[in-house]
Amino acid sequence: MAEILKGAPVAAAISEKLKEKCAGLKSEGVFPTLAIVRAGERPDDLAYERAAIKRMEGIGIAVRQFVVPTDGSCENDYRKQLPEMIKEINLDPDIHGCLLFRPLPDKELEKQICKLLLPEKDMDCMTDGSLAGVFSGSGVGYPPCTAQAVIELCDHYGIELAGKNIAVIGRSLVIGRPVAMLLMQRNATVTICHTRTRNMPEICRNSDIIVAAAGSAHLVTAEYVHEGQIIIDVGINVAEDGTMSGDVDAASVDSIVSKLTPVPGGVGSVTTAVLARHVIEAAGLLLSRKE
Amino acid sequence: MAEILKGAPVAAAISEKLKEKCAGLKSEGVFPTLAIVRAGERPDDLAYERAAIKRMEGIGIAVRQFVVPTDGSCENDYRKQLPEMIKEINLDPDIHGCLLFRPLPDKELEKQICKLLLPEKDMDCMTDGSLAGVFSGSGVGYPPCTAQAVIELCDHYGIELAGKNIAVIGRSLVIGRPVAMLLMQRNATVTICHTRTRNMPEICRNSDIIVAAAGSAHLVTAEYVHEGQIIIDVGINVAEDGTMSGDVDAASVDSIVSKLTPVPGGVGSVTTAVLARHVIEAAGLLLSRKE
Repeated sequence: MAEILKGAPVAAAISEKLKEKCAGLKSEGVFPTLAIVRAGERPDDLAYERAAIKRMEGIGIAVRQFVVPTDGSCENDYRKQLPEMIKEINLDPDIHGCLLFRPLPDKELEKQICKLLLPEKDMDCMTDGSLAGVFSGSGVGYPPCTAQAVIELCDHYGIELAGKNIAVIGRSLVIGRPVAMLLMQRNATVTICHTRTRNMPEICRNSDIIVAAAGSAHLVTAEYVHEGQIIIDVGINVAEDGTMSGDVDAASVDSIVSKLTPVPGGVGSVTTAVLARHVIEAAGLLLSRKE
Repeated sequence: MAEILKGAPVAAAISEKLKEKCAGLKSEGVFPTLAIVRAGERPDDLAYERAAIKRMEGIGIAVRQFVVPTDGSCENDYRKQLPEMIKEINLDPDIHGCLLFRPLPDKELEKQICKLLLPEKDMDCMTDGSLAGVFSGSGVGYPPCTAQAVIELCDHYGIELAGKNIAVIGRSLVIGRPVAMLLMQRNATVTICHTRTRNMPEICRNSDIIVAAAGSAHLVTAEYVHEGQIIIDVGINVAEDGTMSGDVDAASVDSIVSKLTPVPGGVGSVTTAVLARHVIEAAGLLLSRKE
């Protein structure tokens, strides 16, 4: 049976450290504050928002919610309101970070918003400055919270990344590509697999670690794994009956691999703690500029 | 014996098409112009500059040279002059693109310059906007000329990339990482190898195509290849006696692989044609904005 790598202890350890830092910032007169911007009432967004608010409160970070309806009679209003909200967030010196739920219903609007937000307030890698930072490894900006959560989880459980062969399944800009860059910066050798990959089971079997971020339930089966492997499951797939599963068929690989993250309760549980860290870092940068 | 994939015919074919486009732009009153900015007199820079000027002239693109000395009594002047030059280039509506030779002797200055240049005039992927464009595949900005030259060469010789397993050796920001992104956008499955990769010969042997961009002479030997493979050599290594060689030990792999690019005379010969294409595209965008 594989060791199950739960996210909660990782998030708790990160939060514990952040509490101290947050208290330190407050004693210097900086009150770390996150703006959460949401268009509409998508259940996923609402669930994440609740979890994020709870995490921020536990650490001592203030949250300001910016919500705009996307339906009903004032259907088009959010197209005007969202840019105004982002401008307000940019200008407000008491807001240190911003999380915007994506995708927005309007792609062009989303592009516009991504250009508008100040890179230093971008907590989840929406802006060109943050994307360039993740790609170049310059340390500027913040990687997407989920991508960084993978690294934090590995670090917490003492999983060595340097020199390891890692198969990343998925090439999205929110997880596949950025996590590949973060793993490479840790000196892992990364293969990015995707829907057009010819021999994915073989590539995965030949790797030491698999990071599954395809968004395809039960994709990773016994055929993909070998004894002793570590499987990080980043997939979140909700079936019609409401049950949640990852990209990994846990029942199929459980008796083969050595370590496995669960879904729910794995990487997903770490993301709000990473978000909190980004806010504390952004608030800290503000303080260091003041001094 | 491997088929030798020379760069000159690729560059000639690209140039031929660009000549027409350039003439078309001129008939609309737009005279495509490239600014080349050079600090000091590094022999590599001078050689590339000569080749670039020749290529631009052949196509009908004007070149304006901006040169600043880095030695002698006015040692620190280039730190002031370079930013001024970039500002001038940004403001000049008759300059459509800028190529700056890097690395600059001063890293901080280089960062400053990369921030200063207008992304739309950035012909070689220096700015955050271009880096984000290559990483996200948004089509905004221009990839590094050498990285794109690899793709152009493959296209010219009818080398299918989709579904292929490709080992990229090297993770630099001018070639390894961006070429990996461009190959992935073409639906290849890419493994990025580097100095900390554990089993590089094996990974390379298991791939269909190797893109060698490590900057290490004769790195890729018979041990790295198998029958039928295609090897793209992007390395440029100059020995003490002045002889130039790639990253591939051609004599060692020549009888095994099916296709191989030479050094010199391979990918390197295509980069100035790609640079010219970027200038023509930038001039064309200007025209489309005018209309």
